[in-house]
Amino acid sequence: MNESSNQSAKQIGSHIYAHEHPESESDRGGGFTLWFTGLSGSGKTTIAHLVGPELDRRGLVVEYLDGDTVRTHLSKGLGFSKEDRDAHIERLGWVASRVTRHGGAVIVAAISPYEQARQNARAMVEEHGPFVEVYVRTSVEECARRDVNGLYAKAFAGEIKGFTGVDDPYEEPAAPEIVVDTEGVEPEESAAVVIGKLEELGLVPSEVAA
Amino acid sequence: MNESSNQSAKQIGSHIYAHEHPESESDRGGGFTLWFTGLSGSGKTTIAHLVGPELDRRGLVVEYLDGDTVRTHLSKGLGFSKEDRDAHIERLGWVASRVTRHGGAVIVAAISPYEQARQNARAMVEEHGPFVEVYVRTSVEECARRDVNGLYAKAFAGEIKGFTGVDDPYEEPAAPEIVVDTEGVEPEESAAVVIGKLEELGLVPSEVAA
Repeated sequence: MNESSNQSAKQIGSHIYAHEHPESESDRGGGFTLWFTGLSGSGKTTIAHLVGPELDRRGLVVEYLDGDTVRTHLSKGLGFSKEDRDAHIERLGWVASRVTRHGGAVIVAAISPYEQARQNARAMVEEHGPFVEVYVRTSVEECARRDVNGLYAKAFAGEIKGFTGVDDPYEEPAAPEIVVDTEGVEPEESAAVVIGKLEELGLVPSEVAA
Repeated sequence: MNESSNQSAKQIGSHIYAHEHPESESDRGGGFTLWFTGLSGSGKTTIAHLVGPELDRRGLVVEYLDGDTVRTHLSKGLGFSKEDRDAHIERLGWVASRVTRHGGAVIVAAISPYEQARQNARAMVEEHGPFVEVYVRTSVEECARRDVNGLYAKAFAGEIKGFTGVDDPYEEPAAPEIVVDTEGVEPEESAAVVIGKLEELGLVPSEVAA
């Protein structure tokens, strides 16, 4: 079966091939997904980009999936309604699950404001490896104070609508594996906390003394 | 930077982080993408589903990406215009490139009617491993004769519009690594041709005598 069948999927009774997924779903092993969630400007990307090279240095094959990349490659046309945000996160989660299956160290950095969408991503990934959720807990006030690119000012002024934390919801993670607070904390410290947790979980080899 | 910035991407001057992709793009090695293209009903999926388990048996971690799967997970809302088909193939190609990078044996089965879109997918994959294009060359007449699910009849009757090979183009691959003809040939034979080529390319370990 192929995509043409979708042109009239409802007209099709049953699949013509019995063996749709004959391949075993065995994993390569060693893969996991590190999922950073938090407001725009919270520090997700900064911390993720400190963690990534360290994992790389320790011999893991790192796959960095940020919101922008996935929107460019996979979510062109999606906007910022709840439905579109959910679809975006579902795609990110699905790709993360594929790469996790093949042994990659996936690092996702995405606002991912909805708990259910994150849970769905977790469920897909956990079929193949651990899902480590990192809540980058920076207050709206602090993010707005940083406001490097002026987005919060525009959101508060009503020039941008549907902005997470301003006029669009952010649901705090119910049970994240890691919480990092970034106010008064250097990103390097937060990255060290994340790496430490990954070591503790046995996902990353410990640093060998030089 | 994260996806919120897209809410007003044009208002943003420069990226606030210099180190956007600090992770090395080193590959795990051993990955490749086997890309089946051909008309609806040509036999792509049947052959792919014979090849997959064989690769699996020989120790590869197989990732099967068919048009349906990717449409469900990644391309909901896309239709069958040239633009939408191109976007769909771009997504497939991108995911294939990611899994190839992590050492997977990716098997894509998708009509993928446009040469340029296939070339773009090839270019993304080849950054990380070989791209082996399999043209399943079955004539429209033969596909229509098989017409297991009655789609061709509807397409010829004008009840389905934009059907590849009927009222929508299929551009033959310019330089596929493998061409299989399926008329009067058992799918098992075609699968053996594909496996043989993969062995020849050094991508699959040769069958060891029992």
